[in-house]
Formats: sequence, C-alpha cells, structure tokens
Amino acid sequence: APVPVLETGFVRLVDYMGGDAAIVQGARVSYGKGTRSTSDDRGLIRYLMRNRHTSPFELAVAKFHVRAPIFVTRQWFRHRTASINEYSARYSVLEKEFYFPRPEDIARQSASNKQGRGETLPPEAAQHVLDLLREDAGRCYDHYLEMLNQDEAGNVIDPDRPVVARELARMTLPVNVMTQFYWQINLWNLLHFLRLRADAHAQYEIRAYADAILGLVERWVPHTFEAFRDYMQEAALLSGPAL
Amino acid sequence: APVPVLETGFVRLVDYMGGDAAIVQGARVSYGKGTRSTSDDRGLIRYLMRNRHTSPFELAVAKFHVRAPIFVTRQWFRHRTASINEYSARYSVLEKEFYFPRPEDIARQSASNKQGRGETLPPEAAQHVLDLLREDAGRCYDHYLEMLNQDEAGNVIDPDRPVVARELARMTLPVNVMTQFYWQINLWNLLHFLRLRADAHAQYEIRAYADAILGLVERWVPHTFEAFRDYMQEAALLSGPAL
Amino acid sequence: APVPVLETGFVRLVDYMGGDAAIVQGARVSYGKGTRSTSDDRGLIRYLMRNRHTSPFELAVAKFHVRAPIFVTRQWFRHRTASINEYSARYSVLEKEFYFPRPEDIARQSASNKQGRGETLPPEAAQHVLDLLREDAGRCYDHYLEMLNQDEAGNVIDPDRPVVARELARMTLPVNVMTQFYWQINLWNLLHFLRLRADAHAQYEIRAYADAILGLVERWVPHTFEAFRDYMQEAALLSGPAL
Amino acid sequence: APVPVLETGFVRLVDYMGGDAAIVQGARVSYGKGTRSTSDDRGLIRYLMRNRHTSPFELAVAKFHVRAPIFVTRQWFRHRTASINEYSARYSVLEKEFYFPRPEDIARQSASNKQGRGETLPPEAAQHVLDLLREDAGRCYDHYLEMLNQDEAGNVIDPDRPVVARELARMTLPVNVMTQFYWQINLWNLLHFLRLRADAHAQYEIRAYADAILGLVERWVPHTFEAFRDYMQEAALLSGPAL
Ligand SMILES: Cc1cc2nc3c(=O)[nH]c(=O)nc-3n(C[C@H](O)[C@H](O)[C@H](O)COP(=O)(O)OP(=O)(O)OC[C@H]3O[C@@H](n4cnc5c(N)ncnc54)[C@H](O)[C@@H]3O)c2cc1C
Ligand SMILES: Cc1cc2nc3c(=O)[nH]c(=O)nc-3n(C[C@H](O)[C@H](O)[C@H](O)COP(=O)(O)OP(=O)(O)OC[C@H]3O[C@@H](n4cnc5c(N)ncnc54)[C@H](O)[C@@H]3O)c2cc1C
Ligand SMILES: Cc1cc2nc3c(=O)[nH]c(=O)nc-3n(C[C@H](O)[C@H](O)[C@H](O)COP(=O)(O)OP(=O)(O)OC[C@H]3O[C@@H](n4cnc5c(N)ncnc54)[C@H](O)[C@@H]3O)c2cc1C
Ligand SMILES: Cc1cc2nc3c(=O)[nH]c(=O)nc-3n(C[C@H](O)[C@H](O)[C@H](O)COP(=O)(O)OP(=O)(O)OC[C@H]3O[C@@H](n4cnc5c(N)ncnc54)[C@H](O)[C@@H]3O)c2cc1C
Repeated sequence: APVPVLETGFVRLVDYMGGDAAIVQGARVSYGKGTRSTSDDRGLIRYLMRNRHTSPFELAVAKFHVRAPIFVTRQWFRHRTASINEYSARYSVLEKEFYFPRPEDIARQSASNKQGRGETLPPEAAQHVLDLLREDAGRCYDHYLEMLNQDEAGNVIDPDRPVVARELARMTLPVNVMTQFYWQINLWNLLHFLRLRADAHAQYEIRAYADAILGLVERWVPHTFEAFRDYMQEAALLSGPAL
Repeated sequence: APVPVLETGFVRLVDYMGGDAAIVQGARVSYGKGTRSTSDDRGLIRYLMRNRHTSPFELAVAKFHVRAPIFVTRQWFRHRTASINEYSARYSVLEKEFYFPRPEDIARQSASNKQGRGETLPPEAAQHVLDLLREDAGRCYDHYLEMLNQDEAGNVIDPDRPVVARELARMTLPVNVMTQFYWQINLWNLLHFLRLRADAHAQYEIRAYADAILGLVERWVPHTFEAFRDYMQEAALLSGPAL
Repeated sequence: APVPVLETGFVRLVDYMGGDAAIVQGARVSYGKGTRSTSDDRGLIRYLMRNRHTSPFELAVAKFHVRAPIFVTRQWFRHRTASINEYSARYSVLEKEFYFPRPEDIARQSASNKQGRGETLPPEAAQHVLDLLREDAGRCYDHYLEMLNQDEAGNVIDPDRPVVARELARMTLPVNVMTQFYWQINLWNLLHFLRLRADAHAQYEIRAYADAILGLVERWVPHTFEAFRDYMQEAALLSGPAL
Repeated sequence: APVPVLETGFVRLVDYMGGDAAIVQGARVSYGKGTRSTSDDRGLIRYLMRNRHTSPFELAVAKFHVRAPIFVTRQWFRHRTASINEYSARYSVLEKEFYFPRPEDIARQSASNKQGRGETLPPEAAQHVLDLLREDAGRCYDHYLEMLNQDEAGNVIDPDRPVVARELARMTLPVNVMTQFYWQINLWNLLHFLRLRADAHAQYEIRAYADAILGLVERWVPHTFEAFRDYMQEAALLSGPAL
C-alpha cells in the first residue's frame, strides 16, 4: 500500500530483490571458507557496514512508485545511481494536483543557515503565502488547459481552436505541480540517498519522502537498517585536527 | 565566449582536457606495439567509432557553463553520466529571467507523434499563448518577490514583514524560469547525449542547446565529430528482420 | 540450476526482479493516459527497444552467481554498470581449479584480425599447448600451497615453517585460475554486455558465458529477448556516407 | 615525469582539468550572489569537504598513465567511477616484466586480520618465496613465448610451427605480470579511491600506488588535499551507540 507523503504525494514499494539474508549470502562469496567462524547474520551485516564493505549491499535492490512535486524530484534526480521512469508531460496531460505546504511548514528564511528554514510564520502570514501559492497554481493550470484547449475532464473546449503542444503548454506550470515516477535503486545507493535526504540539511519536503522510505527500509531489511542508523546516520565524524 | 541559445540562455565551453590527439594516444596504449601499422589519427578515430571501442573517447572531458529553463534541465539531468553543479534556489534568489518561445516555435500538438510538435500556430493564436506565458511568469515572479519581501533590486520591501524561506517561495515559479549550472562530462557520454538530444525526437528547446554544443564539439575534436556524424548520428539501424 | 560453461565454470541465475510485464508497467508510467491506445505488451516492448527508450528496461534486474577464469573476469569487470561481490584471495585460499581449453578451441593467431583467433591447431600442436598450460598451472599451484604451507586438504604441512600471506602467495597463480562472484545488473546494461560479449569480436571464452546468459535471458524476458535480437544484436548499422 | 612504484611500475599524471580555483568557481555557481560573504578559497573548500558537498570536486578531473601488476589492477578496476584504457593482451604481446616483492615486504599471513599481512618473513624464508615467484614467472613466460613461437626480441623462432593466438597464450601468465593503462577520473572519485586504497586495510601493493598518487594530488590541489586529509582520511567515525 502506498505511504502518503505531503498529502497529495506517496511512496510505494513496488518490488524488491534480496534482503538481509541475501546480503549475507553475497558477502560469504568473498570470504569463502574464511567465514566459517563468522558470527550470525546481524553481526556480519554490522561488520560490513562498519568497514564500508559496500558491495554486498549493492546486491539487494528495490523499486518504488513515487508521486512528488517537481521541485522535490529536481533534488531527487540528482542522485544518479538509480534508474528512473517518469511521467511524460510531452506525452500526457499533467493532472491538477499541486503541493501546498501546511501552514505549520511555512517558515522564514533562516538567519543562520543560508539554505534553510527558520521559525514558522505567524498564521495570517502563512495564510497569505498559501493564498498566493493557490492563486498561482490555479491560474497557471487554467492557462495550461486553455492552451491545450481542453477542460479538466479532458474534453475539447472549442474544436475550432488549435491544441498547443503539451510540451509547450506545460512550461507555464509552477514547480509545485505533482509528477510521478518509478525508481529502481540498489540498497547501498538507497542508504546514501537516505543519509543525505533524511538529514536535517535537506529541504523538509524531500525529507518527508526520505522518512517514509526509511520506514519501508526498516521493514524490508531490519538488520541493515539498524546498522545504517548506528554507523552512517547517527555516526559523528571527528576531523583529524579535532582528534 | 558563451554561445547564445533560446535568447536568454547560453552554453559556454569553460574548459576541456584532451582532444583528438589524446584519444589516439590513449587508444595506442591498448594496441601497444600492435599499432605500428595503423594509419593516421583520423583513420584510427573512425575505426574506434565504427567498432564502438568507446573507452578512448572517455579519456577526453569537457566542462560547460549553461543557462537554461528548468524544464530543459529536467530533461538534461536525466543523463546521469555527468557531474553537475547547479545554482541553488534554496541559497540564492532566482533572477527574473524566463524562456518564452518565439512565435514561430509555438506549435500544435502533433497528430501523429504523441510526444511532439506539429505545425506552427497562426500568429494571433501564438500571440495569445505568449500573453498567457508572460502573464503567468510575471505574476508568479511578483508573488515570489512578495514572499521574499524584496524588490527586484534585492531591497527589503517592508522590514516588519517576514521573509519566507527561499526554498519555499520558489515553489510558485513556473518551469520556464531560467537556472544555470556547470556540467562536466566525458566525450563519449557527451556524444551519447548529443545523439539523443540533437535528434528530431527531442524537444525543440533542448535540441537548441544540443545543436550549440555540437558546434563547440566540432571545433574541439574535428575528427571525432566527423566520425560521430557518420557512424552515430546519421547512421541508420537496420533491424535483423529487415535485413 | 547452474548452467555449466567451459567445463569448470558456470552461470547461475540466483534471483531477479521484474520481467516483461514489469517493463511494460514502468513504461506506462511515462505515457500516462496516453497509452490507452497502445497495443499489447510485446508491441510496446518492441517499440521501446526500437526507439532506444531504455529507462523501462532498467527497472528489471537480475543477480547471477558465476565461476570463471580470472582472464575472463578481467574483461567482464570492465563493464562498470553492475554490482559485484567476488571471492577474496586475500581472505581465502583459491581452489585448484583452472580453465584449460578443449583442443578444438586452441587456435592460431588470426592473420587478418589482430585481436582474434584463426584456425584450430593441429592435434599434436594443440596437445603441446595443453601440456604447457597444465604444467604451469600445476606447478604454480604447488608453489602456492608451498608458500601457504598447506596441502590440498587445507592441512598445515610443517608447523615450523611460516605461512605466507595469502594476498602474496596468490600472485604466482596464472590468469586461467578460476574465481567466482555474484553479479547484479539491470536488464538494459545486461543487454549492452551481451551485445558486446556474445559478439564475434569478443574472445571465445567470455562469449561462452554470454551465450549461457542469453539462454537465461530468453527464458526470463522472452519479449525483450526477441526485441534485443531483432533491434540490437542482429541489426546492422549503415553509416551516413553509405546511405 | 613518472613516479616509480614497486620498482617496475609507475604512475604518471598525464593531464588534468581544473584545480582548487576551478572547484571554488564551480561551487560559487550554486551559491550565486549568496557567496559574496564567503571567506577565501581554502575556507570554502574546507566547508564543501566537511559538509560532503561533493559535486564541485567532480568538476576537476585527472588522467594518469599507470603500469602495475595484474593483481593490483584487479583491485583497482573495481572502482567503477573512472574511465580506463588498458593494454590489450589479445592485440599485443606482454613484455617480460613482473612484480617481485622486496624481501622486507614478504610477510606472514596475519593471525588477527584474515585479509592482511603480519610480520616479515625471516630472510631465508623470504628468499625462498622469491625463488618460487621468479621460477614460476620465468617458466610461464618462456612457455608464453614458446606458444607465440617468438623470442624475447619478437623474432619468429620456427617458421614451421604455428603461432598460438595471443589471447590464448597469455592465459598461462601469473597475476604478477605487469600491464599498463590510462585512467581518467574526477577528483571526488579519486579521493574516494585514495581513502580506500591509501588505507591500512588495503593490500600493500595497491597502497604503494595510492601513496604515489596522493603526492601528485597534493601538488595539484593543495587545499583540497589538506581538506581531504583532515575530513576524510584522518577523520574518525564515532558510531551512534558510541556517542
Ligand atoms: C526523445 C526522448 C524521450 C524520452 N521520454 C521519456 C519519458 O517519457 N519518461 C522518462 O522517464 N524518460 C524519458 N526520456 C529519458 C530517457 O529515458 C533517459 O533517461 C535519458 O535520455 C538519459 O539517457 P541514458 O540513460 O541513455 O543516459 P545516461 O544516464 O547518461 O546513461 C548512459 C548509460 O550509462 C549507464 N548508466 C548510467 N547511470 C546508470 C546507473 N545508475 N545504473 C546503471 N547504469 C547506468 C547505462 O548503461 C546508460 O545506458 C526520454 C528521452 C528522449 C531522448
Ligand atoms: C543538503 C544538500 C544541499 C545541496 N546543495 C546543492 C547545490 O547547491 N547545488 C547543486 O548543484 N547540488 C546540490 N546538492 C546536490 C548534491 O551536490 C548531489 O548532487 C546530490 O546530493 C547527489 O549526491 P551524490 O552525487 O552523492 O549521489 P549519486 O549521484 O547517487 O552518486 C553517488 C556516488 O556515485 C558516484 N557517481 C555517480 N554518478 C557518477 C558519474 N556520472 N561520474 C562519476 N561518478 C559518479 C560518485 O562517487 C558519487 O559520489 C545538495 C545536496 C544536499 C543533500
Ligand atoms: C580493504 C578492501 C577489501 C575489499 N574486499 C573485497 C572482497 O572481499 N570482495 C569484493 O568483491 N570486493 C572487495 N573490495 C572491493 C570493494 O567491495 C569495492 O568494490 C571497491 O573498493 C570499489 O569501491 P566503490 O564501489 O566504493 O567504488 P566505485 O566503484 O568507484 O563506486 C563509488 C560509488 O559510486 C556508485 N556506483 C558506482 N558504480 C555503480 C553502479 N554500477 N551502480 C550503482 N552505483 C554505482 C556507488 O554509490 C558507489 O558507492 C574490497 C575493497 C577494499 C578497500
Ligand atoms: C571486442 C572488445 C575489445 C576490447 N578491447 C579493449 C582494449 O584493447 N583495451 C581496453 O582497455 N578495453 C577494451 N575493451 C573494453 C571496452 O573498452 C569497455 O571497457 C568494455 O567493453 C565495457 O563497455 P562499456 O564501457 O560500454 O560498459 P559499461 O562500463 O557497462 O558502461 C556502459 C555505459 O555506461 C556509462 N558509464 C559507465 N561507467 C561510467 C563512468 N565511470 N563514467 C561515465 N560513464 C560511465 C557510459 O555511457 C558507458 O557507455 C574491449 C571490449 C570489447 C567488447
């Protein structure tokens, strides 16, 4: 079942190959007879993670179906070590679905963090932001349909007017319009994605997706998830000079 | 000097490493003494291209500075075999620069090609599309500045109003707003990009960039360019059954 | 069940995710409502392959267990778009398993093709080659065990002699010694591998593995296999000038 | 000039694109006007490294010419994020060059570290290992030439005997035979390689190459080198539970 994210979005684990047991099986190929002594699966997985022996984690893969606003996918697709198949706005008409933040997520520019969010806006100010966002999304989408010469149900409005190419008309849609895609990635690169995107430095909106995926990963590969948390996510890096 | 593309955009070759001669030098490492007999550089490059011996082309790399609308970069960044550093709209304010097609590029949805453009729109219809695009871009950008509580010169409008986080405010901007990025890619993957994006199936706007890059490649690596044209770009694929 | 290759080697399909149906499902995400009209699965897969719309094929992945001589894996691992976990000769002792060609595969250097094989050697000459190969493999392996101070059963030979580090001792083994590895790759890159390695230009030994994998792919994704054969493997490339 | 490694090997920096200044220039594209306040180049580079903002480091690339034993390249080429062009033993005859460790590098299997080296062997035992290695290399190479029907100078030995295909004959050569290759990699992935291979867990022989490259990197990009040392190489990772 899809996990709802940001109200109009979702993440769904469509399929996967392998799991904790398969990672261990792959790792034992390297060690050959040498692993006879090695402890249990959990211990081996923690050992692999601690020593950044990453190749066995690459043997497990997952495939997700995601629905997210374009500005989130712009951050997401910068992760190149994955395979993507996205909805084509050249081929099909985008639906009237936008992301609008909840009032409590509308915040000031952070004073300290140049790329971050500070305190939440007062309710009326937040409401004003929402009004602007809704107004823009609504009107841009109306213009989109007008160019496509169709109504929301997909019916032609005026048979005597031209239908502008979809690839052109879509250029007026704001980046909070929703798109969707299939995403296939191996477990190691997924963990790398999660480390960067379930992190406090990441924008709240993509973090919401990363958090949802974390939950799916925890159920899929519990040992790996635990080792990830201990050795990647919550680990602190002490610089040479600091040591 | 930057090559102008789509009026407000550009492509600039910032730096490169290697060229036709370096490709040949790299290829000769494989062949060792075996190449004594091999013909000239041009001949060897054509041989490599014809036989899809691609690794020597990967030894040459180029770095570009590009300014393009977001909907174009969304297609561009799907090419994962490159390194990108893009302007951050979380960190900085996007300028008021949008892409608006020339009237002659505003076309109908193609009847035959589901993801393509057909005939150009009549002048008034094209003008109407442009009016819609300009109206949307203008008002969305005004709202963007309003949320940021700044004017176009970057001055605070009202010191008593909050400044909304840039990462939030930008979500109202349409995908024809301009962004910019540095792009580093090896020559083989660049040719792969050009084959797909300087092709008739690609959307006109990204094709305009690909065409500009083609010109830069031709001057940079003339032998490789010629071999690319003959064996990749203009080559026809005859299917097994057709043969 | 493992498919035997080169007598002492094998390829085994350990697991896979997706298949023809999943590729189609992924492709339909792009097309959205636009695919209503699209024909059947086979037709869509052929369309995707013909137009090099490769991303849906990347949504399917497979994992193999392979046993092959080192000189074959040296060619194999040049394909970077895969995940590998190999037996570690630093960690464990390599078994006494080598690849020796069948007499009918022992051939002259080709006169026309600098990197290829010509006619088969006469029986006695082939036998002489085999004698040399067997002699070298045997003696090198004996020396390997001598350095490791162990016999073939893994028992210490002389408790008073040192055991040389495995990572050092293995350096005397010839490249026809067998190794093994797990290999995870997406279907598109697998087809790319097969095009290059099930091809007449590839060395016979790696081709034997590629041919075995082709058989597994045919059973796994019959429509994709057929499209691959028609549009990639048996397709002829006509150069621009030739057209 | 080539840096000698392991006596018969070397690493040579053939060419590079970019450097500390170009990394900073690339980073400033992201930050736009936002960097006006940012400190000097060194400070920005340290900031990028500390925060694992890796994309600007990918804008710099280097190309090396390397000569190394095959067992070292087998470890090296597992790093997939690079472009390689290697000497072809199908195309050309491998020279009679092998790697033989210095007596002081010939060590026991470590008792504690399953994949490592322990104390150095006593001189006579080390000499015995060297004798075995030299004997194997010598005889295997003689057999190689015998199959190729040529002497060390490349002259045909007996015009009436067949020349075995080079791709077959080479299969008798041990993995300490030397090969050579060109290697193109971006700076970020180079640092990743160095972190893993200039590390105590890496086999001494590849570490010798990594150390030589470290020296070249230090001269090429001094600020990045320093930041790498402080934040990647000498940094300690404290696990969540340990904190
Ligand atoms: C006309 C046209 C229409 C398109 N329509 C759609 C569409 O409707 N929906 C859609 O989603 N996309 C669409 N695309 C995008 C297309 O599917 C590709 O994503 C894009 O063209 C990049 O191509 P590429 O993958 O070959 O390039 P690159 O990403 O540069 O990859 C080149 C090669 O590198 C390898 N590679 C790169 N990264 C990886 C990795 N992480 N793992 C394994 N191997 C890797 C693969 O072998 C790949 O073939 C379209 C593209 C074109 C040109
Ligand atoms: C908080 C935050 C702020 C950011 N700010 C900016 C910004 O201002 N501007 C900006 O442009 N980006 C920004 N990014 C994006 C960032 O620079 C990365 O592009 C993105 O996080 C993907 O990370 P990655 O490259 O490690 O992942 P992946 O692309 O998945 O790569 C993982 C690893 O694979 C290897 N790799 C993948 N593809 C290639 C290839 N083609 N060639 C060689 N090696 C490859 C590399 O070793 C890489 O480290 C930001 C990211 C975060 C999390
Ligand atoms: C001390 C030591 C011991 C080792 N022991 C073993 C062993 O016993 N057995 C064994 O098999 N290996 C072993 N290795 C090799 C190791 O598993 C890695 O294969 C190797 O170090 C390369 O590391 P990498 O994958 O991080 O680097 P790269 O291949 O350069 O990859 C860097 C990053 O790029 C991304 N990436 C690159 N290619 C792809 C791709 N095709 N698809 C998706 N993402 C990609 C990933 O994010 C990856 O983390 C050992 C390595 C070391 C240093
Ligand atoms: C008959 C034959 C003869 C050969 N002779 C030689 C020889 O003499 N010398 C020699 O060195 N090699 C030789 N090769 C190997 C060849 O050059 C390739 O390295 C090998 O075939 C792998 O092919 P590939 O790079 O297309 O595959 P992959 O590594 O799987 O790459 C597929 C695609 O992914 C992308 N990609 C993958 N990794 C990266 C990366 N790190 N950065 C950017 N893009 C990436 C590229 O677009 C690439 O085209 C030979 C191969 C064949 C089949």
